[in-house]
Amino acid sequence: MSKQFFEHLSKFTEVNENDLEEIMTFFDFHKLGKKEILMEAGTKCTYNHFVLSGCLHMYFINSKGTERTVQFAIENWWITDNLAYLRQAPTDFYIQAVEKTEVLSITHDKQQELLIRFPQLEKYFRIIYQISYGSSLMKMKYIHDLSKEEMYFHFTEHFPEFAQRVPQYLIASFLGLTPEYVSEIRNKKRS
Amino acid sequence: MSKQFFEHLSKFTEVNENDLEEIMTFFDFHKLGKKEILMEAGTKCTYNHFVLSGCLHMYFINSKGTERTVQFAIENWWITDNLAYLRQAPTDFYIQAVEKTEVLSITHDKQQELLIRFPQLEKYFRIIYQISYGSSLMKMKYIHDLSKEEMYFHFTEHFPEFAQRVPQYLIASFLGLTPEYVSEIRNKKRS
Repeated sequence: MSKQFFEHLSKFTEVNENDLEEIMTFFDFHKLGKKEILMEAGTKCTYNHFVLSGCLHMYFINSKGTERTVQFAIENWWITDNLAYLRQAPTDFYIQAVEKTEVLSITHDKQQELLIRFPQLEKYFRIIYQISYGSSLMKMKYIHDLSKEEMYFHFTEHFPEFAQRVPQYLIASFLGLTPEYVSEIRNKKRS
Repeated sequence: MSKQFFEHLSKFTEVNENDLEEIMTFFDFHKLGKKEILMEAGTKCTYNHFVLSGCLHMYFINSKGTERTVQFAIENWWITDNLAYLRQAPTDFYIQAVEKTEVLSITHDKQQELLIRFPQLEKYFRIIYQISYGSSLMKMKYIHDLSKEEMYFHFTEHFPEFAQRVPQYLIASFLGLTPEYVSEIRNKKRS
């Protein structure tokens, strides 16, 4: 697991393999069963999570009582409620395992210590957040540009690995569609 | 202008005032008239822009030929198409001045050089992108949770400085509403 994390770090910054053991001491390792909850709305957002294997999603419960997914994370992605994490404030979101998942988790305090001890990791996190922010701007473009039907097919064509492993009702939730609507457009395409 | 930028840098990282003159040499200064275009769809996304004064918006033209704003930037905000900027690829977006605007602009190459020369700025950009990404997740929550009418009033109540200086049709575009719909709900509230 530390090898996988090292390879990911090395993609974006210079890091010495000899430092890896020390770097890993800043993290907790968690193993989650399918549907297990990792973060709960109303609690302080303590952790930032790096997915080693499996899949997580972050969602909130809207005013009508419906779960709405705002973010997925598969292998080598980070996930947390970043604003609440930065402010060490309560979050409005839940994070849940979509399937069996293994994560490396770091508290905000430990992350600060890690960045002081290994300043070259600032570059790593800068690029990670820059990509994440850039991607969310593209998602905003799709929301503005595509019909609901186009959005569904755009998503399943561009992210086939998601479409295969994530249940349809979660893809629907992520795209702001009802599961019934997704069934309908899938059937329409088939016929 | 360099004092304002120094103060912003100092809020997030440690930077020596003696280095400021050298830091500024990495940037170009641009003065824009109202409605002037700073970045054009179809061209390479060369620059990242820091707003010193005024207001910019980033938009694309959707398949129906309508302008759709995905991002605003006022004083002390950065704006660019981050994915295209990172990849030094053509962008799908325009950046335009909403009012008279002054910006500090940096090319991707110069930003890389700047970060090598002053590694403590990695921390500055890491936090900037972390806040931006966190905010975009919150925006996604509002899109999923609020009705169009609620979204308009949430926006104008939480960002009154925007509501006052940005034309209504741009707020409508940012929220995915038509200008006619915004007029209608404003009139309804007044009566």
